[in-house]
Amino acid sequence: MLTRRVEEPGRKKLDDRAKPAIQLPTDAIVRITKTTICGTDLHILKGDVATCRPGTALGHEGVGVVDAVGAAVATFKPGDRVLISCITACGRCEYCRKAMYSHCANGGWILGHRIDGTQAEFVRIPHADTSLYPIPEDADEEALVMLSDILPTGFECGVLNGKVKVGSSVAIVGSGPIGLAALLTAQFYAPSEIIMIDLDDNRLAVGKRFGATATINSTNGDAARQVMELTSGRGVDTAIEAVGIPLTFELCQDIIAPGGTIANVGVHGIKVDLHLERLWSHNVTITTSLVDTVSIPMLLKSVQAKRVDAGQLITHRFKLHQIAQAYETFGKAADTKALKVIIEV
Amino acid sequence: MLTRRVEEPGRKKLDDRAKPAIQLPTDAIVRITKTTICGTDLHILKGDVATCRPGTALGHEGVGVVDAVGAAVATFKPGDRVLISCITACGRCEYCRKAMYSHCANGGWILGHRIDGTQAEFVRIPHADTSLYPIPEDADEEALVMLSDILPTGFECGVLNGKVKVGSSVAIVGSGPIGLAALLTAQFYAPSEIIMIDLDDNRLAVGKRFGATATINSTNGDAARQVMELTSGRGVDTAIEAVGIPLTFELCQDIIAPGGTIANVGVHGIKVDLHLERLWSHNVTITTSLVDTVSIPMLLKSVQAKRVDAGQLITHRFKLHQIAQAYETFGKAADTKALKVIIEV
Amino acid sequence: MLTRRVEEPGRKKLDDRAKPAIQLPTDAIVRITKTTICGTDLHILKGDVATCRPGTALGHEGVGVVDAVGAAVATFKPGDRVLISCITACGRCEYCRKAMYSHCANGGWILGHRIDGTQAEFVRIPHADTSLYPIPEDADEEALVMLSDILPTGFECGVLNGKVKVGSSVAIVGSGPIGLAALLTAQFYAPSEIIMIDLDDNRLAVGKRFGATATINSTNGDAARQVMELTSGRGVDTAIEAVGIPLTFELCQDIIAPGGTIANVGVHGIKVDLHLERLWSHNVTITTSLVDTVSIPMLLKSVQAKRVDAGQLITHRFKLHQIAQAYETFGKAADTKALKVIIEV
Amino acid sequence: MLTRRVEEPGRKKLDDRAKPAIQLPTDAIVRITKTTICGTDLHILKGDVATCRPGTALGHEGVGVVDAVGAAVATFKPGDRVLISCITACGRCEYCRKAMYSHCANGGWILGHRIDGTQAEFVRIPHADTSLYPIPEDADEEALVMLSDILPTGFECGVLNGKVKVGSSVAIVGSGPIGLAALLTAQFYAPSEIIMIDLDDNRLAVGKRFGATATINSTNGDAARQVMELTSGRGVDTAIEAVGIPLTFELCQDIIAPGGTIANVGVHGIKVDLHLERLWSHNVTITTSLVDTVSIPMLLKSVQAKRVDAGQLITHRFKLHQIAQAYETFGKAADTKALKVIIEV
Repeated sequence: MLTRRVEEPGRKKLDDRAKPAIQLPTDAIVRITKTTICGTDLHILKGDVATCRPGTALGHEGVGVVDAVGAAVATFKPGDRVLISCITACGRCEYCRKAMYSHCANGGWILGHRIDGTQAEFVRIPHADTSLYPIPEDADEEALVMLSDILPTGFECGVLNGKVKVGSSVAIVGSGPIGLAALLTAQFYAPSEIIMIDLDDNRLAVGKRFGATATINSTNGDAARQVMELTSGRGVDTAIEAVGIPLTFELCQDIIAPGGTIANVGVHGIKVDLHLERLWSHNVTITTSLVDTVSIPMLLKSVQAKRVDAGQLITHRFKLHQIAQAYETFGKAADTKALKVIIEV
Repeated sequence: MLTRRVEEPGRKKLDDRAKPAIQLPTDAIVRITKTTICGTDLHILKGDVATCRPGTALGHEGVGVVDAVGAAVATFKPGDRVLISCITACGRCEYCRKAMYSHCANGGWILGHRIDGTQAEFVRIPHADTSLYPIPEDADEEALVMLSDILPTGFECGVLNGKVKVGSSVAIVGSGPIGLAALLTAQFYAPSEIIMIDLDDNRLAVGKRFGATATINSTNGDAARQVMELTSGRGVDTAIEAVGIPLTFELCQDIIAPGGTIANVGVHGIKVDLHLERLWSHNVTITTSLVDTVSIPMLLKSVQAKRVDAGQLITHRFKLHQIAQAYETFGKAADTKALKVIIEV
Repeated sequence: MLTRRVEEPGRKKLDDRAKPAIQLPTDAIVRITKTTICGTDLHILKGDVATCRPGTALGHEGVGVVDAVGAAVATFKPGDRVLISCITACGRCEYCRKAMYSHCANGGWILGHRIDGTQAEFVRIPHADTSLYPIPEDADEEALVMLSDILPTGFECGVLNGKVKVGSSVAIVGSGPIGLAALLTAQFYAPSEIIMIDLDDNRLAVGKRFGATATINSTNGDAARQVMELTSGRGVDTAIEAVGIPLTFELCQDIIAPGGTIANVGVHGIKVDLHLERLWSHNVTITTSLVDTVSIPMLLKSVQAKRVDAGQLITHRFKLHQIAQAYETFGKAADTKALKVIIEV
Repeated sequence: MLTRRVEEPGRKKLDDRAKPAIQLPTDAIVRITKTTICGTDLHILKGDVATCRPGTALGHEGVGVVDAVGAAVATFKPGDRVLISCITACGRCEYCRKAMYSHCANGGWILGHRIDGTQAEFVRIPHADTSLYPIPEDADEEALVMLSDILPTGFECGVLNGKVKVGSSVAIVGSGPIGLAALLTAQFYAPSEIIMIDLDDNRLAVGKRFGATATINSTNGDAARQVMELTSGRGVDTAIEAVGIPLTFELCQDIIAPGGTIANVGVHGIKVDLHLERLWSHNVTITTSLVDTVSIPMLLKSVQAKRVDAGQLITHRFKLHQIAQAYETFGKAADTKALKVIIEV
């Protein structure tokens, strides 16, 4: 079986390994039809993700067809088309009972991290009943690949945590795939203002096309002042941090209105300053989270009802044997203008 | 009229000044019967509160009797016994409409800060209809002084923001008056565990008496490990920061469980480190706030229904002419074991 | 001053009476520029509203210009353009503090009911600071007349109480002005399905145009079966009752999914059957409410941000002297296809 | 194996049948150590529960020891002491994902209803991982029997649905086991007033002992007036219906304050009148529900933390061979003063 795996930092291989087999009665084997690459995959290849098991096949997103199921799998049977959640949920631990699948005691983010992932012809999905989702007959498979991780992440970690509300003002710092996923799903709540902030004019233009009411290029360090101007000096009700560096988290603190919420989505490598000397009396909320993907069923309905066009995030398409090229394209997004790339298997 | 005022940092005076008069139709003049000293008053005297108007009479807590009302005051009349909120709320601005009185565009924390306060024989209360509360016939006035600031602060900024829940685990870092107010009001929600953490064994003993299920003296730097042990390695669902220094905020980050909330109550003078490199995927919420005092009516009912014994916080009593001694006692709390002092006017 | 008033059931008059004057320091006098007629006004004229004070000038909706203000009014001054809430809120009573203005101890629904209303050249607005809203410079006044009552009612009593959610299914029983206001504002939350149900094909066509995903003419008594078919036998998550008779409330009980909410908006004259013998284990919620109009500021922002086109509800326009004709047109809606009529003063 | 089963309405048998066996890999067999009788069991024996499968062994409450588990059961092993939920939850269907286990597509209330129940020496528990709960080492088993159904029902359907809040007023109509379970768990939220209403002075005395702040014997039809008097004419914020007949639901409508919630817990056999002609503008919420038992883990912690004394509900104890006598005692509660009876197996 062909798969993309990480051996050691910096090295990439597409190699042949045995097709995975059912190990537990709750497992399913899924034949991947479409997958994609996540920013996290790049981090793994750079060696930034210390918890990643060496030799793991990469990828935690994708759709496919059930190939085999364990004896205890009740929801799916071979031949069923399924969407794979990037988060594996046992459905029975304390965290799963609270719908906090990200911290599942028997799963969580393990695909392409602790066990072989989806950038492969086949993948083993533990706890299949609660980690796969049936795909409607007439669904657009490509668009649904966006529901494995990127759309739920933008929605749950950015929009829901950020308490985006009808009539409220939102700033999204970072107009990459995650920031844009937040932008798309923020519109579920009809906020009055959505300001996209980025260094890249192309990505800001995409933001505008996707529904931003204003865009700010923060290159000149003037973004905070511009946000204040756009909000009559008040700041925004929700600031979504979708980059993951101290500078952007700092910006969020500069533009948040009293009573507002900073929803951190970015993956941070180092600590940041929190200005409690100023914010202690500002009535702000700061949230962090790994995605739970509890919103997948809702997002499926919303995609089907055409309330959100998830497919807009897809800019490039490749075959599995072109995966090196896909990584190249995705990795040089500033040049290639790549957002999400589809890899057809 | 005798009043306590701040002239310049470090200097204290009890001086004679004119009795305040109605300035706007929404004002009331209240004759103070009982007031108290807040940690913030000490900060002002030390010169730490730059926004404090020089010469302001101190004090933002107290109960009294209405002496006079402006033409537009509809709820109160001379002779009515009233509880004074530390927060002045106009009741009509955008923030007041959202019950976020702390940021009232026409009030907020102004008593003993921007205008003369309650450590005096008389005080002018702007927006009286929405900044005073009627005192029930049979109420214990002393206990109600705790409802001007300390109890709502512990409750709103600590317990409510911290989402204390039935069956949950809570750690309160700081067993001073604010931490103890959080402890008393956390019990409204029947959490399973409430761990008090402080450097002072006397204050921890008070915590135990007030209902803590465990206490930790953090002198030896071992508090985080002990909390983890008490919570089976999980951490606490709610960590209430009631001190206001980087070290205690750091401790909160070390002991918070996935999905938990750090509610900051402490007044911070400098920035703190936020460990997003670790917390980004931990699904935590951090809140800050100045008290809104929206909970005063509820707390009044709860005191009357004997659901909380607010009077327990009172350790010392003085007359207004003894105010220097009251400050002395309150300022040296480690020696005097003072929590809240009542000043009878 | 010309005004429309009710003398006794069935009789209508446009008569001349004295221009109202400031009575309390919190009053404002507003010169009406545009007003409208509500279904409730028809009920009053029919004699159905026993609480209506005889001789009251009708009307509780409208926009205008401040003509005079009492000494305690702080937010508005003569010349300010304002939107009038149908609910008068004192801003200080227990209910107003909880943002439940509908039950304001010193106000509530009094305009055109207990005191003279807005179908007049001038109207006195008690508690002006908390019962009027400033109109943005560039706003469409006509559209804003829809924010006095109809849009907040559809939104608060229907959409918010009904917990309309992203991806959920909604049925609105009654496609009159209130049902359509619910339809317009339900779309703030991007539900997957919104089914309009009515007896009148014209109103259903309007519903379709306003964003319904399906419409059902319930004339043949088959509506429940059709809703079940549209929802795969599950029923709807939200059923909004916007008629006010036993039959339509019955229908809501027939189509509500387990865990769903029936939000009653209709004004009922008689009791209804509640099928607890079936619903006791169905995990449903039923809500009732008079509008609080707390959503007016948010709706103002949403209209300005073009998130909702409130003006769509307006079908006819009249001058004040044509008010009898306006009532005629509005009263015979089935024939005239009237939704909301604008009366220019 | 000895078991209590229902053959046909009115007939009762304790008979010998085969010990149940694992049927699916997700099943567990539990050896019952303690069980109890529910009011619903009486309804079944009277023939009131049409959905009950003839010949079913009764009982849906109990604690025991795991005897055997299917291949896919991961949380439990033979020898584990477990608490049995009255609701069987598959953990994977749409409803379970929303923590609405009562409507589980593959479970729900099936024990002692659709499949053999717990009034037996052994019981088969489908979906064991998500339908059983581990019992702490030092727990009081008898008290935990109250957590299978009665305590979660009072808490979830009464207290949580009824939105009991700190400082609020609560009336509980019906001081039987369910009403008393609501009373015990309402105190988690420190309401200011809890008024118990019943026809039986003994049960009211129990209510008083369990923490009611007032009791009303409603025999003379005067209960509504008395509640109004106790609440200064305002009514209660929460009315919990714990009887299940039109008269008591009527009473709830008579005593509910504007903005309040009627939480129906009673099992109703016939429809009731809903006075929308009065309540339409009263801003009330009415809820119904079958228990989900999602609160069992929290209740376990609360029992262990001594925040609630569930054992107080137990009035009588029997051995399994005395089950007829246990039914007799429980069925004649007015005479025997029985609340919950423990049956030791």
